[in-house]
Formats: sequence, C-alpha cells, structure tokens
Amino acid sequence: MSILITGAAGFIGANLVARCLSRGNNVLAIDNLSRGTLDNLRAYQADARFTFAELDLNNLSALKSSIGSYHAKDPIKVVWHLAANSDIPAGIADAGVDLRDTFLTTFNTLEVMKQLSIPSLAFASSSAVYGDFGNQVLTEDLGPLFPISNYGAMKLASEALISAAVEDYLPQAFIFRFPNVIGLPATHGVILDFIHKLQSNSQRLAVLGDGTQQKSYLHVEELLDAMFFITEHAKDPLNYFNIGADDGGITVKEIAELVVARVASQAQINYGQGNKGWVGDVPKFTYSIEKLRSLGWQPKLHSNQAVQKAVDQIATAILGA
Amino acid sequence: MSILITGAAGFIGANLVARCLSRGNNVLAIDNLSRGTLDNLRAYQADARFTFAELDLNNLSALKSSIGSYHAKDPIKVVWHLAANSDIPAGIADAGVDLRDTFLTTFNTLEVMKQLSIPSLAFASSSAVYGDFGNQVLTEDLGPLFPISNYGAMKLASEALISAAVEDYLPQAFIFRFPNVIGLPATHGVILDFIHKLQSNSQRLAVLGDGTQQKSYLHVEELLDAMFFITEHAKDPLNYFNIGADDGGITVKEIAELVVARVASQAQINYGQGNKGWVGDVPKFTYSIEKLRSLGWQPKLHSNQAVQKAVDQIATAILGA
Repeated sequence: MSILITGAAGFIGANLVARCLSRGNNVLAIDNLSRGTLDNLRAYQADARFTFAELDLNNLSALKSSIGSYHAKDPIKVVWHLAANSDIPAGIADAGVDLRDTFLTTFNTLEVMKQLSIPSLAFASSSAVYGDFGNQVLTEDLGPLFPISNYGAMKLASEALISAAVEDYLPQAFIFRFPNVIGLPATHGVILDFIHKLQSNSQRLAVLGDGTQQKSYLHVEELLDAMFFITEHAKDPLNYFNIGADDGGITVKEIAELVVARVASQAQINYGQGNKGWVGDVPKFTYSIEKLRSLGWQPKLHSNQAVQKAVDQIATAILGA
Repeated sequence: MSILITGAAGFIGANLVARCLSRGNNVLAIDNLSRGTLDNLRAYQADARFTFAELDLNNLSALKSSIGSYHAKDPIKVVWHLAANSDIPAGIADAGVDLRDTFLTTFNTLEVMKQLSIPSLAFASSSAVYGDFGNQVLTEDLGPLFPISNYGAMKLASEALISAAVEDYLPQAFIFRFPNVIGLPATHGVILDFIHKLQSNSQRLAVLGDGTQQKSYLHVEELLDAMFFITEHAKDPLNYFNIGADDGGITVKEIAELVVARVASQAQINYGQGNKGWVGDVPKFTYSIEKLRSLGWQPKLHSNQAVQKAVDQIATAILGA
C-alpha cells in the first residue's frame, strides 16, 4: 500500500514517514521545504520504499503531474495532509500566509485526490478551530465555531471543504484535531524557544505573557498511535476526533521551570503581562477526549510527562547530554 | 454616512442599494457583473449619492486603489459584503468557483477593510454553514459545523476569517445566516426556474427531486428589515443571527402548486426521485429565530405568504399581468 504525506519534512511529517515505513508502506513524501528540512528525512533516503518530491502544494499543475505519475505506477490509497503554516504570528501579520499555506494547500490536495480518485484523507486539524470557549471543556460537537486566529480560520475552512468533498466524491476522511504536539525533531514551539533563549542568555528566561496559559501536550509518538488507531477503528465516511492528553494540560510556567531545571538551573524566569501570548492565542483550553476513549484509545503520558520527555530529548539533541 | 456594497448588482444587492439610498446614505456599489446586471441598478444611476464601480473582488490591487480613492474623499463606515457565487451546482462541478467567488471575495474584502480601517462589516452568510442536521431545529450555536457543499464550506470559511479579523483589527461584524430569499429582481431560484420551465412547456412542470424538500423563505423586504434591525440593536463585536420566516417552511411541492396556479393552471407536475435536488442540497432545514426574536424582531409573513407574494411579483414581471 502506498501513502502520500504532505508536509513530510516537518516535525510531525518526518515522524509519520518513519512510522509508515516501519508499517511496511511505500511513502511518497512531499514538502516545499519552506519550514521543513531534508535533514529531517535523511534517515529514510536510502529506503527503496521512500520517495521524496520537492513540491509546493500551491502549484497545482506540478502537483497533478508529479503525484499523478507516481500514482499511475503505484496507486496511492491514503493521503496524510499535514502541510500548513505552523507560525501563527506570521499568519496574523499577513493573512495571506495562512490562506496560502494552511488553506489553499488543502484545497489543492483535494483537487488532486478528486482527479486521481484517491479514496482516503487523513487531515491534521487543530484546537484552533474552536476559538476561545474559556474554561469550557472542548467536545467535538461544540458550537458555534468562531476561530480567533487566521490559522484557526483556515483549519476550519479546510475541515469544511473536506466535509463537502465527503458528501460529493471522497469515500472517507479523518479529521484529527491536534493538541500541542512535542518531541523530536523540534522545529518550533515553546520548549525550543525557551532552550534557544537560554542558549543566548543562561541567566534569564523572558516568558511571553504571565505564564498562566495552560495547554494539553501530547508526545508525537502517542499522536501517531492515536491517529493510526482512529484510521483503523473509525468507520464513518467523515470521522473527527480531538486527540490530546487526558488532563487539563500544563502551564507555560511549569514548562519554563522544567526547561530551566534541565538546561540552566541558575536562570531567573521573568514573566510578561496578560494571559495571551499574541493576538489569536487561546489562553487556555481543555480537550474532552471522551470520543477517542470510547473508540478504545487513550494516551499513556500526562501532559507534564510528555513535556518532561520532550524537554530531555530536545535539550539532548541541541546541547548534548 | 457612506456605505460600500459588494455584489450590488445582484438580487439582494440591488434591493440593499435602494434601501440604503432611501435611508440617506451615500452608496459605493461594486459588482463584477458576472451574474448581477446593471439593469438591476438602472433606477439609481441618476442619484448623486450613488456610485457604481465594475470591480472584481479577486483583483485586490484594483480594489484597493478604487475603493481607496473613494474612501479618501468620503470615508466608508460600513461594508455590506454580499458578493458570492449563487449557483451551488456550479460550485459542485468546479470547487474553484466557490473558492474564488464565495471565499476569496471575503478574504479580499477584509484585506481592503484592514488597510483602510473601515470599522464595520455586515456579511451575508447562509444556512449552508450548518450542513445537514436532519430534522433538528438550527440554533446559531449548534455544532459540529460540517457543510455538505463547497458553497456552505466557503461561507463557513468566510465566517471564520471574519471572526479572526474581529479578534485582531475589525471593531464590529454582523453575520447574517440567510434563509432562501425571494422577491424582485429575480435572478435565480426555484420560483424563477418553475416559471421558465412553464414558459417552455405550459403543459408539464418537471420538478427535481420528489418535492418534499422543505425550506423557510423570506421576502427580500423583510430580510432588509431584519438586517438593519440587527445592525442597530446588536452590540457585540461579533454578532451572528439566523434570519428566517417564523415557521417550518414550505415544500417544493407547495411552491410548484402556487406557481402552476398562477402561471399555467392546466399544467401537470411531475416529480423526480429522492429528496435531494443535487449533491450538497440540504433536503430540509428549520431555523430557530429565537435569538432574533429576543433582540426584538420577527417577520410579518409566513413562508407560504412570502412565496405567494414573490410568485405574483415575478410572474407579473416576466409574463405581465
């Protein structure tokens, strides 16, 4: 069975490539290398079942021709569509970033799937589709959906377009609403930010906001476990699940303390004002993962354990043991 | 006060132009004339407070320069954004139609509003954002939102982008989820279709589907009443309302019978199969308008009265008395 992965050179993409190869799949990995790097895929270059194509999902004609010729020889059964802008503040400064990289990538992925009759789509959505529900626990069927960032808006737009495709021509789709996902290779995110700041100045860590932002974190290995479990057990034409740790999350303050303890225990932590790091940042959210638990899966690690594991891995990768 | 209306040469746009002029506003009306026609605006061409510009909302640079130079002389306080693809089947055949005409038009409208600091947006959304909830009454806070047409998907995407804009730079927005709206000048829709069919063949009216599709209809005059009421009374940064008749709607069968009675009483009505006219057509929906009623407005006409009024108006306009 052959699988197409978009955004394959990014953090989660590279982990997914490894997992698909280890499951015995052929993998066509595409990425425009704007954020992802070939470094993340170096380990698989020699594998005969692995093919990489540098492709921008915004170039529909190149996409159709390149994926089409692969598909003609080795039919693609599933598309894992992960490509998106991962830099929320960049999408605030210029709405065109999320339009192009988060939404039109999905539009074009669906266009290619329709043309080639590829029957299944697995899509990386986000908690950002919910907007800000305050302290309310986020269940999948909650409404209204008013995202507060362009990123969230374009993820919701992608979900909506997938839903319409399932009504029309696409036999099956899986929408995964991700939590914050952590692990190696770290490409962005709060843990990496903090380590980089402490590399520049080991005496002081400046935290954006007052540190009370609280989010659920899942280690990438568990994210992959959950996604494959869902694709194997959920049977509706359109399947949508929150994926997250089974807890209320961990605060930025706790993360800062874990990083400081591991990297520069003498550093002082200075907090900013307010509980929003930037416009469109949801200060706190708590997923319900009841739907996923009912399907039969739950994570082994709590958020703080996942963060501890990732801090160790990332610090070791960057700074050495 | 000056107002910008997009899609001004269409059915609802032309009615809105008339209403704004009668309320004493200056109106900048734009349309790409792909579906709307200048015929619909002929009555206002001589009015000094009326300005028409043939502009495609997909041409962002032309948009910025044309609207910008108007705005510099006569600051625009509100944008009424109505421009969209109104042909759902066209959007099914080619997803690019709704992407371009229903969604990117909204994206570019917001880009212009951001650049010019225009403080208020009134947006024509749709029941199509809800997808198919079967017999469940549609309240505004319902979820999940999985539209079943590209049109609905791109309207939901537009709502999401507006929500993110309100979080960031836009002081106020009004999202109106329209029912089927009827009246003059008729440009599309089931009443016009039936009259055209009976013009071709006065003996037989072929109806798509089994006629049990049931929808709420509002006359365009009442739609305008509701929208202005909301803009004057709703005070949140982001305001969203269903607008509809205060009933469960009227079936296609009843509409067919009203049209036949008015136009060709001898005609036989032949029904098709199934209760979906086309892919992505929601067979039946019932709005809750409780939120709008709580704000203080409710329609005077039931769906069947609105349809009867529109059938009379459209038949008279097309066929004469």
